[in-house]
Amino acid sequence: MPMTITEKILAAHAGLDRVEPGQLINVRVDLVLGNDITAPVAIKEFRRIGVEKVFDRERVVLVPDHFVPNKDIKSAEQAKILRDFARQQQLTHYFEVGRMGIEHCLLPEQGLVGPGDVVIGADSHTCTYGALGAFATGVGSTDLAAAMALGEIWLKVPESIKFVYYGELQPWVGGKDLILYTIGQIGVDGALYQAMEFTGPAIETLSMDGRLTMANMAVEAGAKNGIVPPDEITLDYVKGRARRPYRVYQSDPDARYARVYEFDVSKLEPQVAFPHLPSNVRPVSQAGHVEIQQVVIGSCTNGRLEDLRLAARVLQGKKVHPDVRLIVIPGTQEVYRTALKEGLIEIFIDAGAAVSTPTCGPCLGGHMGILAAGERCLATTNRNFVGRMGHPESEVYLSNPAVAAASAILGRIAAPQEVL
Amino acid sequence: MPMTITEKILAAHAGLDRVEPGQLINVRVDLVLGNDITAPVAIKEFRRIGVEKVFDRERVVLVPDHFVPNKDIKSAEQAKILRDFARQQQLTHYFEVGRMGIEHCLLPEQGLVGPGDVVIGADSHTCTYGALGAFATGVGSTDLAAAMALGEIWLKVPESIKFVYYGELQPWVGGKDLILYTIGQIGVDGALYQAMEFTGPAIETLSMDGRLTMANMAVEAGAKNGIVPPDEITLDYVKGRARRPYRVYQSDPDARYARVYEFDVSKLEPQVAFPHLPSNVRPVSQAGHVEIQQVVIGSCTNGRLEDLRLAARVLQGKKVHPDVRLIVIPGTQEVYRTALKEGLIEIFIDAGAAVSTPTCGPCLGGHMGILAAGERCLATTNRNFVGRMGHPESEVYLSNPAVAAASAILGRIAAPQEVL
Repeated sequence: MPMTITEKILAAHAGLDRVEPGQLINVRVDLVLGNDITAPVAIKEFRRIGVEKVFDRERVVLVPDHFVPNKDIKSAEQAKILRDFARQQQLTHYFEVGRMGIEHCLLPEQGLVGPGDVVIGADSHTCTYGALGAFATGVGSTDLAAAMALGEIWLKVPESIKFVYYGELQPWVGGKDLILYTIGQIGVDGALYQAMEFTGPAIETLSMDGRLTMANMAVEAGAKNGIVPPDEITLDYVKGRARRPYRVYQSDPDARYARVYEFDVSKLEPQVAFPHLPSNVRPVSQAGHVEIQQVVIGSCTNGRLEDLRLAARVLQGKKVHPDVRLIVIPGTQEVYRTALKEGLIEIFIDAGAAVSTPTCGPCLGGHMGILAAGERCLATTNRNFVGRMGHPESEVYLSNPAVAAASAILGRIAAPQEVL
Repeated sequence: MPMTITEKILAAHAGLDRVEPGQLINVRVDLVLGNDITAPVAIKEFRRIGVEKVFDRERVVLVPDHFVPNKDIKSAEQAKILRDFARQQQLTHYFEVGRMGIEHCLLPEQGLVGPGDVVIGADSHTCTYGALGAFATGVGSTDLAAAMALGEIWLKVPESIKFVYYGELQPWVGGKDLILYTIGQIGVDGALYQAMEFTGPAIETLSMDGRLTMANMAVEAGAKNGIVPPDEITLDYVKGRARRPYRVYQSDPDARYARVYEFDVSKLEPQVAFPHLPSNVRPVSQAGHVEIQQVVIGSCTNGRLEDLRLAARVLQGKKVHPDVRLIVIPGTQEVYRTALKEGLIEIFIDAGAAVSTPTCGPCLGGHMGILAAGERCLATTNRNFVGRMGHPESEVYLSNPAVAAASAILGRIAAPQEVL
């Protein structure tokens, strides 16, 4: 019985020889994750269950990243719940302010996720780790509580959709553009409770940072998970990082898919998602004259080193437009450190950008760059719903970091080629 | 008739040959300042007066620094009022996010204040500029509105108190320790509506950054202004910065003072202000065992280059204590840039500190490091009132940047010598 990579990972973690889409299975999890928004609820629930200890103190990861450094008393109290619980449970992977990062940038970087893993996190963008060939999905805080206690979770095996990307990518086109284009094609419910399997020549040459961006936004098409078949790029990435053994799974050649999409992306331009849906996508050349007041480069979608390198390449020797606030947020302390050593931070500061310590911040309208009524922001983040970054009458546009940087310079949505 | 430096500056700006303490005078102002908390109120009032234009578009300075990058919708709306007003009035000195700094770090750095100036700002720490031999004081938003319209303000001439500091300072002792010690001696109402004139051999050798720290906290003793007689250090600082002509005033040798304090500071240790008053001061050696959860290095009091250099000297090659969040906030983009080039930011990042873009942030409980109940913070800021940095049951301790850095490493209030 042929299976997809997603089905194989789930079968192995359910102790079964085979699983089928729609099947309800109890799955052993390799890692569970909570943040300063979701973990406090889960911790309360965990205590109500009456369990004393988490199932494995090395496999429960807590990352305060949404509202830190604490924006107010409430967020300070939330972060303190994580800190106290991590200490009480002697968790090995609690990441404090100054030594942390945005969870979905941090966990792969720290080698906490590997190919073949099952990871659940109480955050919708947990699907990011599919880029490593893992099954990773977001759950609610109650599911997180149960998984923290038991190390298991009930899941329905998703159908898989196969995406095949052909052709060589144009300059300034990357993972963000592939996923925006894809969501534009299938819509925000185009993969509801399904696995998005990203394959083809354009994926095989895509960097790990680009793959993480793609898998990250699978949930924006409604997917249960996104996944990239592990290859040399995957193994190079996990080599020297992985803290646990991992196992590489591949879809069988004759595995069954709900659908197969084939895209020729050789002529694809950088993509921009217009308000108020990630599927409302246009090529940057057709963006028209859209003036912006803020640009955000960062987030779990595009806060990695490659993203900052792209932005810096565009911003080098240039100045941010006088009417624009450019906010650059490295995804992790390690990304910040490396960007510092490579001279990227200096380029941002010289250009007139505000460089923040790692935080989810503006992406979810949390802090560190909230919009007033009538303001427009171009962001490398993942969602542009109404009011996502602030006032209900503000607007968010999504793009890759190079487009974001070019737009910060010109004060309107622009292609990198316009400033280089 | 002999006069103090404060009296001379006020007399000159009132067009009078002489003034006396207690006299009400109408004073021409050289510069008026508003921020994202106070200027929106002033702008509303300004419009209500019915004046069309500010008295001088080069002398009205607006700095969004308290809640930026915007922490929420309300702060975004406040910042937008400044931005729109600055554009409408064509102000030459509006400082945008990414090109700004904490107002009282920014204005001296940018050469907007010089010796002999009268500066009013709708922020209590406007007294900072007295370090340059200017008369500078905080006013309310209504006074700011009137001054934006007229370029004048009514003031009551303050009595002066003379402080004379003798002796050579010990290592790791600087302006912050002198002013904390002074407030400890005279109390938080020790200079109510009076001018604090800082003089003596220890001041004559004090750096400009140290002097700015001292004048900054004059208001914590209730003073109308703090002032340091201009000397070579002053002139060196303003040389190449000053954007307007300035004039050096000195107190007459026989000027009248309400009081004269003489302090031998040759044996002075670094000082720590315990909760909940800046006057509740102890030498660091007598701090006892006080565990802390957060350390903040920055603010208009200690966010300048010299402050970061001191902190970096202590932190170099060390790690922040696992239970401590160290938040470092360069006072301005220029301070950040220089700290970057000097390798200070790298030292902070390597130590495990969160480095923020310039903002007042945590100092006033605004954002970027708010405390939960029961938490203690050692900060280089200026106020440690109940709930100043967050929860009413949190505590703030004040110190210089070297003590703050040492404490971040050890997780308790500590002297720099303990880690070096």
